[in-house]
Amino acid sequence: MGFPRYYFATPPEGPLPLTADIARRVRFEEVDALNMVWHGRYPSYFEDGRIAFGEKHGLSYQLFKAHGVMAPIVQMHVDYHGPLRFNDTVRIEATLYWNDALRLDFDYKIIDSRQQLVTSGYTVQLLTDLHGDLLLIPPEWFQEFKNKWCQGHLG
Amino acid sequence: MGFPRYYFATPPEGPLPLTADIARRVRFEEVDALNMVWHGRYPSYFEDGRIAFGEKHGLSYQLFKAHGVMAPIVQMHVDYHGPLRFNDTVRIEATLYWNDALRLDFDYKIIDSRQQLVTSGYTVQLLTDLHGDLLLIPPEWFQEFKNKWCQGHLG
Amino acid sequence: MGFPRYYFATPPEGPLPLTADIARRVRFEEVDALNMVWHGRYPSYFEDGRIAFGEKHGLSYQLFKAHGVMAPIVQMHVDYHGPLRFNDTVRIEATLYWNDALRLDFDYKIIDSRQQLVTSGYTVQLLTDLHGDLLLIPPEWFQEFKNKWCQGHLG
Amino acid sequence: MGFPRYYFATPPEGPLPLTADIARRVRFEEVDALNMVWHGRYPSYFEDGRIAFGEKHGLSYQLFKAHGVMAPIVQMHVDYHGPLRFNDTVRIEATLYWNDALRLDFDYKIIDSRQQLVTSGYTVQLLTDLHGDLLLIPPEWFQEFKNKWCQGHLG
Repeated sequence: MGFPRYYFATPPEGPLPLTADIARRVRFEEVDALNMVWHGRYPSYFEDGRIAFGEKHGLSYQLFKAHGVMAPIVQMHVDYHGPLRFNDTVRIEATLYWNDALRLDFDYKIIDSRQQLVTSGYTVQLLTDLHGDLLLIPPEWFQEFKNKWCQGHLG
Repeated sequence: MGFPRYYFATPPEGPLPLTADIARRVRFEEVDALNMVWHGRYPSYFEDGRIAFGEKHGLSYQLFKAHGVMAPIVQMHVDYHGPLRFNDTVRIEATLYWNDALRLDFDYKIIDSRQQLVTSGYTVQLLTDLHGDLLLIPPEWFQEFKNKWCQGHLG
Repeated sequence: MGFPRYYFATPPEGPLPLTADIARRVRFEEVDALNMVWHGRYPSYFEDGRIAFGEKHGLSYQLFKAHGVMAPIVQMHVDYHGPLRFNDTVRIEATLYWNDALRLDFDYKIIDSRQQLVTSGYTVQLLTDLHGDLLLIPPEWFQEFKNKWCQGHLG
Repeated sequence: MGFPRYYFATPPEGPLPLTADIARRVRFEEVDALNMVWHGRYPSYFEDGRIAFGEKHGLSYQLFKAHGVMAPIVQMHVDYHGPLRFNDTVRIEATLYWNDALRLDFDYKIIDSRQQLVTSGYTVQLLTDLHGDLLLIPPEWFQEFKNKWCQGHLG
């Protein structure tokens, strides 16, 4: 605790990571019989961060859908540093690390109102067509996003 | 409590209701900070009953999908007679009442291992096309289901 | 559709209903294979309205807990007038109607960004102690809330 | 794919891992707008495996509760090898690896009806008292479980 975890690293020539964040308040229904948020609800928190990222940096779900591209999560990891309680308000940070391949490497931090890191984690997404087959060539709109990122026009 | 509730009635010329049931055990994640199943999880229990009904009597979700028909729920009602706890095993009964119109009137009962009625309720579904527009004429496969029911070939 | 539904009525001598509202945006995970919010997720929307009401009018979950009182939902009803889609932003209105008995009669409306009523419903809650036994005498803090309501000091 | 993943290893003197499994069928509500089980629902699948393990090998949630011990999950990892669809029936395998410390190292596999490994993952749990403080000395009932395991009386 106290040490933020970094799961991904930027490759030598890559641009710095991009970040977005959003607030969320714990609902009664999310809390289990032990009075803490059930561990299985955190993917929803990470997804809030990912959605906020997409809106801030122009990489929304709607854009993927419009182009017939899916970005299924192939790996998810969560480290629980402390519990969340009913009515707690947290800040969810989603950070995208550069990857030369056609994949999205998101790192997450959940920070409570006392500025403690309560949860961290990451997800890996691959880009596929609507049949679930991996894309081999970056779609134009995706390459454009990466170009803007490289040129420092995002963030 | 102790008195099962009947929400629908069979019209004079209609056939008797059809029933199916299925068992379910309460998961840890369904239980709230007050150690009982959160009230908002019961639609999932009712749906288990509806799915079991569809499989027993030949009115499955897959059949609707194959014919481009949806059956959205337009009304849901739940009466909570007592709490459910972690690990309780219950029996969910779904009963379809005859309705001359293009709608599905399901009645539900959830019965615990001591044969107590802990929850009852109902849903109303209408038949629509994939645009959400109400069907005016019964699809052939649906009429066939109703014919079998009338002739006593189901149940 | 188009006509808001009123499920409860104020008795002759009772004060007018009290209202609170809150915004909510549809998450990806709430949407089903038919691209609409699954009908079973609406209790969560109603609960958001109830929580907002408690905070605005001084009848919070924490207050109940501090006094060892539960308010289990014994009846829930939902009328679905139209679908909700991913990313829709809605307003949830929770309205408490006066009841002379020790119960809470909440009426709900969910209104989309085009001011259409997409969902309405109600819940009934009874007041119990921590064993689940009905309270026969109103707790002081609850009577105080009702007095303020009668005297027009809320709303 | 095709190669099961092993996340934990048995230490030199430790007994072989213990396994339990359970079947589960995908519910309609678990499937997202892309017609596959939403990635955030898999913690529930893993928990089913863990509960089945506890019942088979005598390490149930009720036992922990009776002794005032919690076993919060401090780490969770999921690898998604392929999608799950509505109505799929899967087998969930939970395997506990020996660890000299007061922790539970569970490895999970989800296997579909064609015997394909669709998901794998692991969780790490620590033992705490009801205040969330780590246990330093193994409770008697827990040591007994470990003794039986060492002596080959489980599995």
